[in-house]
Amino acid sequence: MSDVVALVCKIDPEQEAAYLSALAAAMPDETLVRFRDLSPAQRAAAAIAVVANPDPADVAALPNLAWVQSLWAGVERLMAELGAGAPPVVRLVDPELARTMAEAVLAWTYYLQRDMPAYAAQQREETWRQRDYRKPSGMTVGLLGLGALGTVAAERLGQAGFRVLGWSRSAKALPGVETVAGEEGLAAVLGRSDIVVCLLPLTARTRGLLNGARLAAMKPGAALINFARGPIVVARDLLEALDGGRLSHAVLDVFDEEPLPPGSPFWRHPRVTVLPHISAPTDLDTAAAVVAANIRAYRRTGRPPRSVDVARGY
Amino acid sequence: MSDVVALVCKIDPEQEAAYLSALAAAMPDETLVRFRDLSPAQRAAAAIAVVANPDPADVAALPNLAWVQSLWAGVERLMAELGAGAPPVVRLVDPELARTMAEAVLAWTYYLQRDMPAYAAQQREETWRQRDYRKPSGMTVGLLGLGALGTVAAERLGQAGFRVLGWSRSAKALPGVETVAGEEGLAAVLGRSDIVVCLLPLTARTRGLLNGARLAAMKPGAALINFARGPIVVARDLLEALDGGRLSHAVLDVFDEEPLPPGSPFWRHPRVTVLPHISAPTDLDTAAAVVAANIRAYRRTGRPPRSVDVARGY
Repeated sequence: MSDVVALVCKIDPEQEAAYLSALAAAMPDETLVRFRDLSPAQRAAAAIAVVANPDPADVAALPNLAWVQSLWAGVERLMAELGAGAPPVVRLVDPELARTMAEAVLAWTYYLQRDMPAYAAQQREETWRQRDYRKPSGMTVGLLGLGALGTVAAERLGQAGFRVLGWSRSAKALPGVETVAGEEGLAAVLGRSDIVVCLLPLTARTRGLLNGARLAAMKPGAALINFARGPIVVARDLLEALDGGRLSHAVLDVFDEEPLPPGSPFWRHPRVTVLPHISAPTDLDTAAAVVAANIRAYRRTGRPPRSVDVARGY
Repeated sequence: MSDVVALVCKIDPEQEAAYLSALAAAMPDETLVRFRDLSPAQRAAAAIAVVANPDPADVAALPNLAWVQSLWAGVERLMAELGAGAPPVVRLVDPELARTMAEAVLAWTYYLQRDMPAYAAQQREETWRQRDYRKPSGMTVGLLGLGALGTVAAERLGQAGFRVLGWSRSAKALPGVETVAGEEGLAAVLGRSDIVVCLLPLTARTRGLLNGARLAAMKPGAALINFARGPIVVARDLLEALDGGRLSHAVLDVFDEEPLPPGSPFWRHPRVTVLPHISAPTDLDTAAAVVAANIRAYRRTGRPPRSVDVARGY
């Protein structure tokens, strides 16, 4: 019997239907079947699973998978849930996702540079006061993470006139961007940046990276944007840095627990902007096209696409 | 006795001192004197007045002015106050001002595209809800006014991926931007734009331009950004359009009366963002350089720079 591609999701049924239809349209030569609709023979035959928040037991019930394609860019939870011995996992690397994320970085950088939170507070108090304007050329934006997303974000910020200082675990050169690496480089980014933007993957090394000591090393009055993963920032330490006035503001799109639970101090904090994980939503059509291209290449060559390095975690 | 340049301001003394020192630094060959420090002989000799919100009587007390240089781009009040028979008025045309304004247009366009007002409201209610993401390529931004400011704003919006539709009183071509003109063109911009940005000068023709009928012609759910002058939009009609749900939001940096008076319904309106006239603050150093260059050219040629057309008003 012929091979199938298994779609393994534990998401809103409407969203699943939308994924199914976008993927089916992008790969007309493949037989795409939702996990629950797979026959026993199809379960045995499936070499590829396309997943979005899958039940790990479902993935484990497909014994002959050559690889797993995630529909999301962040795969730390998936990797942890699948555990050792799981088939290789391929992250979604979608240029449209990088564009959307770079746009979010620029939009919320402007939000901070243009003092939008302070003007909103002034409006609530009916206060008419012009705050000092800060030119982008006089501000440094520190970017933590220079992967597919960080690279495009650095470019957009540079085009908008901001000084960009990029940090990555291992040294990386980007045209027109000052880059640093390692622990010393991190200290430089934290000490020099007016706005620090976190775009790092969540790994064993980045979990808790922005703790009390590192937040205290930030420039007084600086702001933080976290568009990566909640646990990279130690929530309690961030609240202390905001309360103590060391940090002027935090824009948070990601949290230790999502949805952010009712009663979390972040909801009501005057120096925090809470976003419901919306910085870079997956674009169904472009994501489906990327996945389809990966599957086509695999059918042609028999080699799975570049997968996540289990040791590095990304 | 030698000629002087008169500085005629009715502004905050600290701001006046800052203007004086920036201007003096930019024109070391000129004698720059504040109005109140002018001797009777200097009053008679002054051929140039550099002004910022001047008392019209002070300007009238300089009988031999060849021209008046405004330190601001908007001169409608100055022109009205000086009245007929006044010397020619030269607006500030500063490329840095155009850059800053284009940046403001992009920043608050992102503010609307990225649903920042709605997410702020959700945060106040502790609501975690992802709203539909709108790609710039699927949104049309209508720009009213294609002068020095509008041209650069159109370029920046286009680079960010928005579809730009530009309107001006008389037809104007801009590379890469769809432009329209006249009353019919205005109807097209209002009917097709998701966001309308007003950058028009305030003149007899633009006063009250965005009235109830024209606001009702806007696309349902569209938003308005007014970074030009308050009286171009009929305040009462705008409030009606917002209350009736025709418009989803207005970002207002300018008002009929500034500072916006306490108790104005704009302060508390959930669909209005009030800004205290900060979209494009004058940059002292670049403005002083532009003014100095105008004065140098005048000294060399004896001809005042291009001045405001009294009939058109800009």
